[in-house]
Amino acid sequence: MSKGIPKRSENYSEWYNEIVKRADLAENSAVRGCMVIKPYGFAIWEKMQRALDDMFKATGHQNAYFPLFVPKSFLEKEEEHAEGFAKECAVVTHYRLKAGPDGKGLVVDPNAKLEEELIIRPTSETVIWNTYRNWIQSWRDLPLLINQWCNVVRWEMRTRLFLRTTEFLWQEGHTAHATEAEAVEETEKMLGVYSDFAENWMAMPVLKGVKTPSERFAGAVETYCIEALMQDGKALQSGTSHFLGQNFARSFDVKFVNKENVQEFAWATSWGVSTRLMGALIMAHSDDNGLVLPPKLAPIQVVIVPIHKTPEDLAAISEKVGPIVKELKAAGISVKFDDDDKQRSGWKFAEYELRGVPVRLGVGMRDLENGTVEVARRDNLTKESRPFEGVVTYITELLGEIQASIYKKALKFREENTFRVDTWEQFKDQIEKGGFILAHWDGTPETEEKIKAETKATIRCIPLDAPEEAGKCVYSGAASNRRVVFARAY
Amino acid sequence: MSKGIPKRSENYSEWYNEIVKRADLAENSAVRGCMVIKPYGFAIWEKMQRALDDMFKATGHQNAYFPLFVPKSFLEKEEEHAEGFAKECAVVTHYRLKAGPDGKGLVVDPNAKLEEELIIRPTSETVIWNTYRNWIQSWRDLPLLINQWCNVVRWEMRTRLFLRTTEFLWQEGHTAHATEAEAVEETEKMLGVYSDFAENWMAMPVLKGVKTPSERFAGAVETYCIEALMQDGKALQSGTSHFLGQNFARSFDVKFVNKENVQEFAWATSWGVSTRLMGALIMAHSDDNGLVLPPKLAPIQVVIVPIHKTPEDLAAISEKVGPIVKELKAAGISVKFDDDDKQRSGWKFAEYELRGVPVRLGVGMRDLENGTVEVARRDNLTKESRPFEGVVTYITELLGEIQASIYKKALKFREENTFRVDTWEQFKDQIEKGGFILAHWDGTPETEEKIKAETKATIRCIPLDAPEEAGKCVYSGAASNRRVVFARAY
Repeated sequence: MSKGIPKRSENYSEWYNEIVKRADLAENSAVRGCMVIKPYGFAIWEKMQRALDDMFKATGHQNAYFPLFVPKSFLEKEEEHAEGFAKECAVVTHYRLKAGPDGKGLVVDPNAKLEEELIIRPTSETVIWNTYRNWIQSWRDLPLLINQWCNVVRWEMRTRLFLRTTEFLWQEGHTAHATEAEAVEETEKMLGVYSDFAENWMAMPVLKGVKTPSERFAGAVETYCIEALMQDGKALQSGTSHFLGQNFARSFDVKFVNKENVQEFAWATSWGVSTRLMGALIMAHSDDNGLVLPPKLAPIQVVIVPIHKTPEDLAAISEKVGPIVKELKAAGISVKFDDDDKQRSGWKFAEYELRGVPVRLGVGMRDLENGTVEVARRDNLTKESRPFEGVVTYITELLGEIQASIYKKALKFREENTFRVDTWEQFKDQIEKGGFILAHWDGTPETEEKIKAETKATIRCIPLDAPEEAGKCVYSGAASNRRVVFARAY
Repeated sequence: MSKGIPKRSENYSEWYNEIVKRADLAENSAVRGCMVIKPYGFAIWEKMQRALDDMFKATGHQNAYFPLFVPKSFLEKEEEHAEGFAKECAVVTHYRLKAGPDGKGLVVDPNAKLEEELIIRPTSETVIWNTYRNWIQSWRDLPLLINQWCNVVRWEMRTRLFLRTTEFLWQEGHTAHATEAEAVEETEKMLGVYSDFAENWMAMPVLKGVKTPSERFAGAVETYCIEALMQDGKALQSGTSHFLGQNFARSFDVKFVNKENVQEFAWATSWGVSTRLMGALIMAHSDDNGLVLPPKLAPIQVVIVPIHKTPEDLAAISEKVGPIVKELKAAGISVKFDDDDKQRSGWKFAEYELRGVPVRLGVGMRDLENGTVEVARRDNLTKESRPFEGVVTYITELLGEIQASIYKKALKFREENTFRVDTWEQFKDQIEKGGFILAHWDGTPETEEKIKAETKATIRCIPLDAPEEAGKCVYSGAASNRRVVFARAY
């Protein structure tokens, strides 16, 4: 149908790039590694934001906004954190430009050098915990449950639209608690929110687990994550929730008086998902014809395309379709009646397929005679003729069915591409073919590092629900008591 | 009531600072000139955003996202624009830190110097028009109606929370059109949206007008604005909408083929409002007791405070209040039942007054006996006892009445503080007392500049509805054919 999109089986990477481009989701900007999120792509992101934001609020969180700039001295305060982010920082050193020496153009004004350099936030733990110091005095001030939606910058060397960009949009939750247990509970609760969102909104099954120490967030005591499997057999980390212990409270001196009237450091969590989820959404469901969107995140859930030759035909179709558009909207369904006369219906069919609109209704003159409408599903590309009568109820149910069906398909794919592997030969063989590999690991960073060096596979997570099982490390043969999940990853 | 807030009449500036602080709206951050928007302040901003965003979408606009970074060469392209913003730019010069020479701390890595410096966007015309070059080829691609919500940075020397901060949040609309007339129409339409929002949501009357050339946005052909009068008699520019002509299209070579098959440059507009509106909202309505919020923008519209001595009393009140909370929520009213036992009811009364909650319901044991509830209005501080029966309907209507009443009060204040002035003596005298001054001006930048130098008054706008009226310039005595609006301004 859509010329120019390579097949997934032929060139997955190019397929992805073409989907992003042709479905009008995003493009590279003139600034290396930064993207422009186009209106259609942004509309999907807005739907994600709204759903997540509602979930955050339902779990007691409030939004706030903290500054873009991190003083260099803040970044230095938590050692691991500093080490983790120092190498990818955009640094503001001056606050003014002036006319160039020849009177032409602009140059940095050397007289406007900052006393202390400012980092564009790569994440906001430091700025926020510096602020919390004044907000937290007593156990009565806790828990503090705050989230912010913002842009962050990490100077990545190799970038790809949505998956890894220098600037990206995200939310970052930062909470403070009176006890370790409560902070751990919060960390796990927010992982649950993320997995709920991934599965029920993005229709994307995810594994919940914890990272190994070497894959932890810089400054975290424990990093929880959700991991999804893409159609090329690579894993994509889709959200993380960190238990930060008292590390940041200690670095920024955030103490409170507990119920026993004793001063102690507050316990912290942070958790985030980003526009990377857009990449996950695209790669989890789309096919060789273009984007496939789960109905709950589709900016247009139903498109109605008239098939006509004359303006009179179009008028007749419009008249018939009008009440349906109204009824669909009243049912909370976003619908577009595309009566634009500049494009033919065939072109429109291909276009909406490319853009992943879940349901397309085609209405031609014969349909008017027969009282029917052609209903086409984007997810499985099936079509059927349905009576006009009751079509709104039918579509309402169909959208739910499509949402469930897309999830089921992705889950089936993951199940078929998850392998229990017990020998190193098998491991090396399977990793080339892709998928999640469940294998025993001896728990040492040395083995983890060697496996990565030899196969590019990383431990995606130690699943929360991994059963105890005695076994031997697939690499070293040393004893292990549970399987972990390996994969090559984005 | 609320100790520690200076009276407006005594120290307006300190009064403002205290309201911002005590109502928990925002605070200064560790980074000079940048603010932390606290949860309660951010909740108000979110309500503003939602209302504006709905209005933008209803007028055909779509959201998108463009990069934070502006290459220095982009800023240079439109000369006036460059001149306008060069002096207040945060400049990124490096992209990496490394360990300090003594192994301690972090220093900027000199090997990670950018070839071309990046400016943190002070506004996005340049980045966006550079992008539009690829999006616009034909008249069929027009109009392009795009908005983005984001943060921007202007390195201000003197900052005040919300009113003028180095980093602020805003929306910026950027549209491209096939004809001059259409672009002008868009500029005026968006001014209308802003004035509609200011008056109907913020309950703040505004003057609509155009700026004089010297007050225009850098790079604009015409700048339209809405101007509001604060309670200290100073003006606050609350939103601007710019007709940019073909300036940016020319600088970034954005051409399209028109219907006559001739290439021409696209016509542009841009328009924005920012977190400055928070400052306007606070200063327009608040009083010596604290914040006063119009119900449409209040995060909590109704608070219910139980007045009790024993846990049994509280239980009895809770039981009575439960159904009301439910009914209010069902009516789309945001309500909080504050049954927190850590604070006394008197403290709560003061706290919600400080925070500007429009309606407070007090319920004590005698109310239970009598089947009544005490209804207190924040705007005029009146109280009355009402029967429980029908209280939800009453409150629904009351919220509308409060919204209207706050607007009416602000309008009356503006009317009483708008003066027609015809002599220079009168002008100098009145400007010290504050208010909008309607005076004749000879139309020259020289006179405008002299008036500003002598009185600190600027021309806020030439009102769109200013009637033709022959007169003499209040300063030079030269002929003038309409009055303009002078004021001292934020």
